[in-house]
Amino acid sequence: MKMAQLSAVSDTPIATIKFYQRENLLPVGERTGPNQARYDSTHLRRIRLVRGLIDVGGLSVAAARAVIEAIDSELPLSETFGVAQRSVSDLLDPAGIDAGALARVDAIMAGWCVSADNPGRLAAASVLETFDEIGHVDHRGWFAAYASAALLVAEADLDEVDALPDREAKAETVVVGTVLGDALFSGLRRAAQEHVSALRYPATHPNPARVTEPPEE
Amino acid sequence: MKMAQLSAVSDTPIATIKFYQRENLLPVGERTGPNQARYDSTHLRRIRLVRGLIDVGGLSVAAARAVIEAIDSELPLSETFGVAQRSVSDLLDPAGIDAGALARVDAIMAGWCVSADNPGRLAAASVLETFDEIGHVDHRGWFAAYASAALLVAEADLDEVDALPDREAKAETVVVGTVLGDALFSGLRRAAQEHVSALRYPATHPNPARVTEPPEE
Repeated sequence: MKMAQLSAVSDTPIATIKFYQRENLLPVGERTGPNQARYDSTHLRRIRLVRGLIDVGGLSVAAARAVIEAIDSELPLSETFGVAQRSVSDLLDPAGIDAGALARVDAIMAGWCVSADNPGRLAAASVLETFDEIGHVDHRGWFAAYASAALLVAEADLDEVDALPDREAKAETVVVGTVLGDALFSGLRRAAQEHVSALRYPATHPNPARVTEPPEE
Repeated sequence: MKMAQLSAVSDTPIATIKFYQRENLLPVGERTGPNQARYDSTHLRRIRLVRGLIDVGGLSVAAARAVIEAIDSELPLSETFGVAQRSVSDLLDPAGIDAGALARVDAIMAGWCVSADNPGRLAAASVLETFDEIGHVDHRGWFAAYASAALLVAEADLDEVDALPDREAKAETVVVGTVLGDALFSGLRRAAQEHVSALRYPATHPNPARVTEPPEE
């Protein structure tokens, strides 16, 4: 298809498509004339991926380019995970994080194989530091439940990646899953809080809750 | 203590404390003279809470005020949950979300009591819509694992709240847990991904992983 069709099918302005090409987020088309190029479904798919990363995932153009380059590279998948994680995480300086908070995160993750500079380890420690500062002590294993849930989700993430046929699909899922998975979990957690709250305190529940049902076949 | 001491103990500039008071985020102290007031540990605790909400949770001043007002109110706890959820969630217009994506979220949450306008339900549907657009189909129950994990975390959230002694501590934990819980889970998920990835692909693991250990007693 031509650029105009690619723009129409992807619902993306031509100026945006050209911007993605200049920023190396999207490969150029196959030249068919001095001012024409041909695009195919791989371009369409890539445009949607870039928009998902930037618009829904909130990534900067530079961060989106880093993960796109990781997808297109021959990096082992575990390194692609690392690039995706670093691109979508605030990078914290370990020296700025309280040693006690780091020790508590490591205790919650006891037995896990995790690098000292894993961005998630540092981010979780920084959250525990804030809980400390506001005087919140975890007496009853609240945070351990988060770690169990995180392990459940990480297993499902890897299962999904393992089941895909080729490296590109795997790498794309690593990236998309890292970026969109946070948003999916946070949404489902809010819905689950309403559900558990409605079960425990039915009388005080403010909204007319409804039990969700599977869609009709 | 006086304002200067409150500033020193909380490591917060006097100008910031006065700003919090003007914005109704912090109650004024007990007057002890024409230009003096006395502050106590409740003020210190509140300053740390406000800073946690704004600095770590990324809330706007208006959103922080809404959740502080919910803590100080006599609202039933379930409504405090609702205020916290709405304050820290992007509020999406249900009309703008694909009906198919909403139906799929409801299928994932089958049997949950959730209001149609729960911000998490809408946010999760919007994520599924993006997965659709980039051509990602969930064949193997990937998202169902997220829902199970979200339920696990929501149960732990409510257990923690239930165990606290008074309404103010409960309400504060609802708010703090909603804001900081997302950040804690997302950090632990990244660490768990590295752990599961290291177990499954030991040879390709890029970093010298280490097994985290509980801190020494």
